[in-house]
Amino acid sequence: MSESQQGMSAAALEAFFRREFPHSTMVVESVGGLGARLRQPVDTAHLRPGGTVSGPTLMALADAALYAAILGEIGQVALAVTTSLNVNFLRKPAADCAVIAECRLLKLGKLLATGEVSLYSEGSDAPVAHAVGTYAIPPRS
Amino acid sequence: MSESQQGMSAAALEAFFRREFPHSTMVVESVGGLGARLRQPVDTAHLRPGGTVSGPTLMALADAALYAAILGEIGQVALAVTTSLNVNFLRKPAADCAVIAECRLLKLGKLLATGEVSLYSEGSDAPVAHAVGTYAIPPRS
Amino acid sequence: MSESQQGMSAAALEAFFRREFPHSTMVVESVGGLGARLRQPVDTAHLRPGGTVSGPTLMALADAALYAAILGEIGQVALAVTTSLNVNFLRKPAADCAVIAECRLLKLGKLLATGEVSLYSEGSDAPVAHAVGTYAIPPRS
Amino acid sequence: MSESQQGMSAAALEAFFRREFPHSTMVVESVGGLGARLRQPVDTAHLRPGGTVSGPTLMALADAALYAAILGEIGQVALAVTTSLNVNFLRKPAADCAVIAECRLLKLGKLLATGEVSLYSEGSDAPVAHAVGTYAIPPRS
Repeated sequence: MSESQQGMSAAALEAFFRREFPHSTMVVESVGGLGARLRQPVDTAHLRPGGTVSGPTLMALADAALYAAILGEIGQVALAVTTSLNVNFLRKPAADCAVIAECRLLKLGKLLATGEVSLYSEGSDAPVAHAVGTYAIPPRS
Repeated sequence: MSESQQGMSAAALEAFFRREFPHSTMVVESVGGLGARLRQPVDTAHLRPGGTVSGPTLMALADAALYAAILGEIGQVALAVTTSLNVNFLRKPAADCAVIAECRLLKLGKLLATGEVSLYSEGSDAPVAHAVGTYAIPPRS
Repeated sequence: MSESQQGMSAAALEAFFRREFPHSTMVVESVGGLGARLRQPVDTAHLRPGGTVSGPTLMALADAALYAAILGEIGQVALAVTTSLNVNFLRKPAADCAVIAECRLLKLGKLLATGEVSLYSEGSDAPVAHAVGTYAIPPRS
Repeated sequence: MSESQQGMSAAALEAFFRREFPHSTMVVESVGGLGARLRQPVDTAHLRPGGTVSGPTLMALADAALYAAILGEIGQVALAVTTSLNVNFLRKPAADCAVIAECRLLKLGKLLATGEVSLYSEGSDAPVAHAVGTYAIPPRS
């Protein structure tokens, strides 16, 4: 079995994110078991008027959590691409808290993987947003 | 407090569905705690070519589960209307099993309520579909 | 070139729908040019409380319009399946008008096809609903 | 009629965006007639591995185009918030072209506004992504 068919660890995923997305400050807290948990520390670049975390910050975090959950299962597949992302914004995130994303895969197929992501302001139980997304996984040769 | 501001029981909801949707054969198994569980027995009217449960059957069940979860909290509000429903079809449902819908509300606001629904062929743990939907709730006078 | 690699005509599509979905009363008005137009006559089975066309009727019509637009390009592929459908309900449809669905394909790939569908009460310009959906197309041997 | 009940011009919108989102480099090319056209010049901050425009860049642009189309009708309502955004990623955007977003409002209600957005690499006719989103509009006193 080649390395790319094993899942990636949280540390490997975070190193991969740092290399591929050098501007990102997301932390991969855990991965595995068809899920992933990411943490986005919030600084002024993530805020929008009204003192809340911007929608694009939440969407980027949801997308990354889904990507992490998939790579945590199938290994490093850099060419996996998002085909759809549906986001519902539910509550105003706290401006002074990190955002936590909890992803759970609903299906991990050969060609498509779909998962749902709940996003929270750290320390709160009420989700600030919820996302469902699908990645297309390129065929392995 | 008027009756309409209390949540509806599973029995009351099912009677309401029977009256309002006389063609429906859905069963409200439970409701409350910001959730609902519905069961759709499957007969030939619900099947599509290939011997599987049709997409519209799954979508109607997801929509009803969300409606039940909301009315289970706020009481009978016949004029609540779906504003959006996003459905991902994940696996082929079994043709000879009922479909179970488990709804969990993500937000119950004054004007909008959003929930997610997982659908399963009865007896299986792998979801056949997943939906996220929003209802608009008319202002109470 | 085999027959299955040519697009289907509106008449062929409607015969296919009648055979595969004997309960359906949808009419395929036109197909081709990366689009399709379907018409759903409305009778009491399609209505919901409040005297309007039910959400599941609209969702089924949107799904069928997308399926028709795809088969109109690639020919009869019975095993193409919906992977996602996102529907926004915009206005109350008239109870005494047919519903028209206009589908336009946004992408017709080898494995995935995505399109958007606008639904109208016949004779009105304001959409009652809008849908975006994706079909997975099985690999051809 | 107060100023806030008239639509904003493209120039007023762009000034508003510059003030509220100082990091943004989006250009409001046109607005009005229930639509808006925005242009996102692409620099290295918008790219992702593989030399293409990142998903979050596309999502942020789609969201802004919808916001612009709404404010172009109802005037400056800073507290309008996105409630949902559904994005389908269709083709790899060119890394060396600006991205154009064309938004068309599907419904402009008192409390909710819904629109669709097609995104293109400038100079190409094939959409790189398509989005549908809804904003909640706060009640005017």
